Amino acid sequence: MALSGQEDVISEGSYVLLYLDGKRKYLTKVEKERVFHTHKGYVVMDSLIGLKYGSRVKSNIGADFVALRPTPWDYVLKVARRTQIIYPKDMALMIFKLGLRPGMRIVEAGTGSGALTCALAFFVRPGVVYSYDIDPQFQEVARKNLERAGLLDYVVLKTKDITEGIDEEDIDAVVLDMATPWLVVPHAHKALKGAGHFVSFSPTVNQVEKTVLELRRYGFIDIKVYELLLREMKVEEGAVRPETLMIGHTGYITFARKALKHQA
Amino acid sequence: MALSGQEDVISEGSYVLLYLDGKRKYLTKVEKERVFHTHKGYVVMDSLIGLKYGSRVKSNIGADFVALRPTPWDYVLKVARRTQIIYPKDMALMIFKLGLRPGMRIVEAGTGSGALTCALAFFVRPGVVYSYDIDPQFQEVARKNLERAGLLDYVVLKTKDITEGIDEEDIDAVVLDMATPWLVVPHAHKALKGAGHFVSFSPTVNQVEKTVLELRRYGFIDIKVYELLLREMKVEEGAVRPETLMIGHTGYITFARKALKHQA
Amino acid sequence: MALSGQEDVISEGSYVLLYLDGKRKYLTKVEKERVFHTHKGYVVMDSLIGLKYGSRVKSNIGADFVALRPTPWDYVLKVARRTQIIYPKDMALMIFKLGLRPGMRIVEAGTGSGALTCALAFFVRPGVVYSYDIDPQFQEVARKNLERAGLLDYVVLKTKDITEGIDEEDIDAVVLDMATPWLVVPHAHKALKGAGHFVSFSPTVNQVEKTVLELRRYGFIDIKVYELLLREMKVEEGAVRPETLMIGHTGYITFARKALKHQA
Amino acid sequence: MALSGQEDVISEGSYVLLYLDGKRKYLTKVEKERVFHTHKGYVVMDSLIGLKYGSRVKSNIGADFVALRPTPWDYVLKVARRTQIIYPKDMALMIFKLGLRPGMRIVEAGTGSGALTCALAFFVRPGVVYSYDIDPQFQEVARKNLERAGLLDYVVLKTKDITEGIDEEDIDAVVLDMATPWLVVPHAHKALKGAGHFVSFSPTVNQVEKTVLELRRYGFIDIKVYELLLREMKVEEGAVRPETLMIGHTGYITFARKALKHQA
Repeated sequence: MALSGQEDVISEGSYVLLYLDGKRKYLTKVEKERVFHTHKGYVVMDSLIGLKYGSRVKSNIGADFVALRPTPWDYVLKVARRTQIIYPKDMALMIFKLGLRPGMRIVEAGTGSGALTCALAFFVRPGVVYSYDIDPQFQEVARKNLERAGLLDYVVLKTKDITEGIDEEDIDAVVLDMATPWLVVPHAHKALKGAGHFVSFSPTVNQVEKTVLELRRYGFIDIKVYELLLREMKVEEGAVRPETLMIGHTGYITFARKALKHQA
Repeated sequence: MALSGQEDVISEGSYVLLYLDGKRKYLTKVEKERVFHTHKGYVVMDSLIGLKYGSRVKSNIGADFVALRPTPWDYVLKVARRTQIIYPKDMALMIFKLGLRPGMRIVEAGTGSGALTCALAFFVRPGVVYSYDIDPQFQEVARKNLERAGLLDYVVLKTKDITEGIDEEDIDAVVLDMATPWLVVPHAHKALKGAGHFVSFSPTVNQVEKTVLELRRYGFIDIKVYELLLREMKVEEGAVRPETLMIGHTGYITFARKALKHQA
Repeated sequence: MALSGQEDVISEGSYVLLYLDGKRKYLTKVEKERVFHTHKGYVVMDSLIGLKYGSRVKSNIGADFVALRPTPWDYVLKVARRTQIIYPKDMALMIFKLGLRPGMRIVEAGTGSGALTCALAFFVRPGVVYSYDIDPQFQEVARKNLERAGLLDYVVLKTKDITEGIDEEDIDAVVLDMATPWLVVPHAHKALKGAGHFVSFSPTVNQVEKTVLELRRYGFIDIKVYELLLREMKVEEGAVRPETLMIGHTGYITFARKALKHQA
Repeated sequence: MALSGQEDVISEGSYVLLYLDGKRKYLTKVEKERVFHTHKGYVVMDSLIGLKYGSRVKSNIGADFVALRPTPWDYVLKVARRTQIIYPKDMALMIFKLGLRPGMRIVEAGTGSGALTCALAFFVRPGVVYSYDIDPQFQEVARKNLERAGLLDYVVLKTKDITEGIDEEDIDAVVLDMATPWLVVPHAHKALKGAGHFVSFSPTVNQVEKTVLELRRYGFIDIKVYELLLREMKVEEGAVRPETLMIGHTGYITFARKALKHQA
């Protein structure tokens, strides 16, 4: 599976990231009699079996590929290419700020293509991610992406509208990437355990404002709103500079923690 | 212990983050007959025993605190206050880009106050972090911080100069936060397993340039240099804006992966 | 006068910027029998008379100062120190985007300490800046700052509420730095000549939203909202890096131009 | 002429910026019997003569254009489209930091397409810009752009290598946009008057480092290196956010001022 394996040697059924150069990397499965075509010729996937990750392989026309083990970062970039709005940099901040750890139980909405779901499941397994989405088609896409990642066992996909309620209780974190996160605040407050984390990703300032006001109304504490800008540097000898083009905005990330009520 | 526990109820020996407001949070240990003093009065730590995380407690003069379970993010902010150069945002990017997972074996240098060591150990345990530093005094500080975090079992502290060599082999990642990372590139290349990760944090562009050129010379691939800017938003109803002051620069993060040599 | 002179030689009544180092510069007037005190000793201002700008002078204890001619940039930094919200970087963008030129007639509000007024007057003289503020005390401060700059002849200070109307007609640009710029949009539309410029500086996103919606309602075109981030680099040989601390936010600048109505 | 006129009414020979929407603006000349074609139909330029700037005109298929007077900002964006590396935001910072004013005498290199030359000439006329470039073909392009802007009278184009020397003396500012600015530092020091300005635009950190070290060696003071990031905001009612794509880097701007030597 793409993300769940730990062995150092590529075997049948493994996923590899075929690396050609900084801009061209291909996520593909190692299967017998499979041939992977690129514009730099094809690679016979059979030939990878038994090699160590990191090995170099040549395409039929002599182009040099390296077979890397995909990380969650690589995987979400590939999975989410089309619908992507949460970028890896934003996922990274969430994962560390929440202190995700094996065994946690998390609620997520919406599932989308499952990119964020994969990242969350990777860090909480053998815990569980309950992932809500109203769109069954998205959940079908997510199911495939989770299966390929080897992480489906740690996810419960729920075709439900999270703004109408959260079924689970004593949850460690509620993670939202949806249009109306403020409508989930009351449900999150009910579902979370004491000191549990609320986090929401939103592209617009207006969503942030509504969500923060609602969080305050429900007594959430440690409310922080961050925006991350990622710059890539271009390094040539004697000529180092930031890249000309940059993703200028992905979204704002709102964090909060649940405080329990005073006891009577 | 500060980071290793998983239970929902505060017990003797637990660490809690006493939250007063967005700018005032105190990391402290729950011990019998201990009293924690703040400028808003004192909290009798005894009184927390048996409460759930997230509970509210009052100081003797009525100030309202919430007892949060510290996350690695909270912990590194407290541990590293004085020597801090790697910020949580940068640690987060490293952790996710490397795909840290339980069981990994990692080499780190320098240990410093052990803040990054804690974060790495949190994600790889029951794996191990081999942490090099030439300064025994720093390692003593780190040992205490790791012990308090409950993570010392997953760290091997080594008072050695990593620019002279790495003892370990088949390592998953080499993580550097030191003045001369380019001197470690040859040793990292030897110590890493195929497709293993090199990552280095450096404040200056000149360090980045030297390191990247050396990584290329050793055939490392997928070399990426990133800089993260974190902006905090200030949210009041009808008045949302980024904060006036901002940390404008922490450092550049250089990532690379080891490709194996062609087989003869 | 501080900004209006053009001669190369310092004379009695000139303003000089006494430069000690990158962080210590003092704006002061050259007068007979005047002594300027700094923590690095005092400078006898008499001794500057007849020297060229750029000359070095020594304080009584041997500290080395350079007598620079102040630019508008230097001047606004000194004038506005306390109430400053528009920074020179933002003024610069306005001045060039509007294409300020000698002879233009401009309306500004609020006057504040007169820092922006100085910058505008510097570029439009012998044109005129009509500067509105409801607070007569601010206008007194501004009057002094404009007088010292030698620019008062090109400014008409008006103690009036600009949200109640603009007296002038056929204006080249309306420049706003005030809490409720959207209330001025109708008046600006009336006062501006065809293709005239509207520009407004606002710290919050909410002000921007209200202003842009109102500009659209009035048929303004070429509406652009910009935010400028200024990073300073720290350059030492072999150690180049951005400065650690940075002003993370000053405000958003909204630009628009007036389109005339279709003729019947 | 595109930038030199001041009248409010469009006449034969005027340049107008035909504005269709935020992304489509066309700089064109008003001439009898001229027809300007766009993908939204054509505009008969004759019909603009006698109209005020800001007037609306319709194309033959009914698309609505507004005839704006081009500002230097608009002009440099159009002129420099292909070779552009200095962006208007960077020009703006230079113009204001230097305090450009009518009558100044400035040296510039390289001329390139003349975009920066236009901006400088606009602010110093009736002063003069001495513009050096080793490439006569570039200077021919620049000559045309300056002529169309109506600013050629204020520019002396010199097909010379500025790294070999500057002919002029008592110059107010030296403005560089070239590959090796550090080679010009000695010449700039000689050519500048006391307190005169040196400014250089460079894309890489390495150029900045060499230039700053050379400036220090020659005793320049008030050395500052800035980088400007311009973010554009996207404003819809209830949905305000920064634009997704952004120019992440144009270049660093190095400022310095000449201090005179101590008198013997």
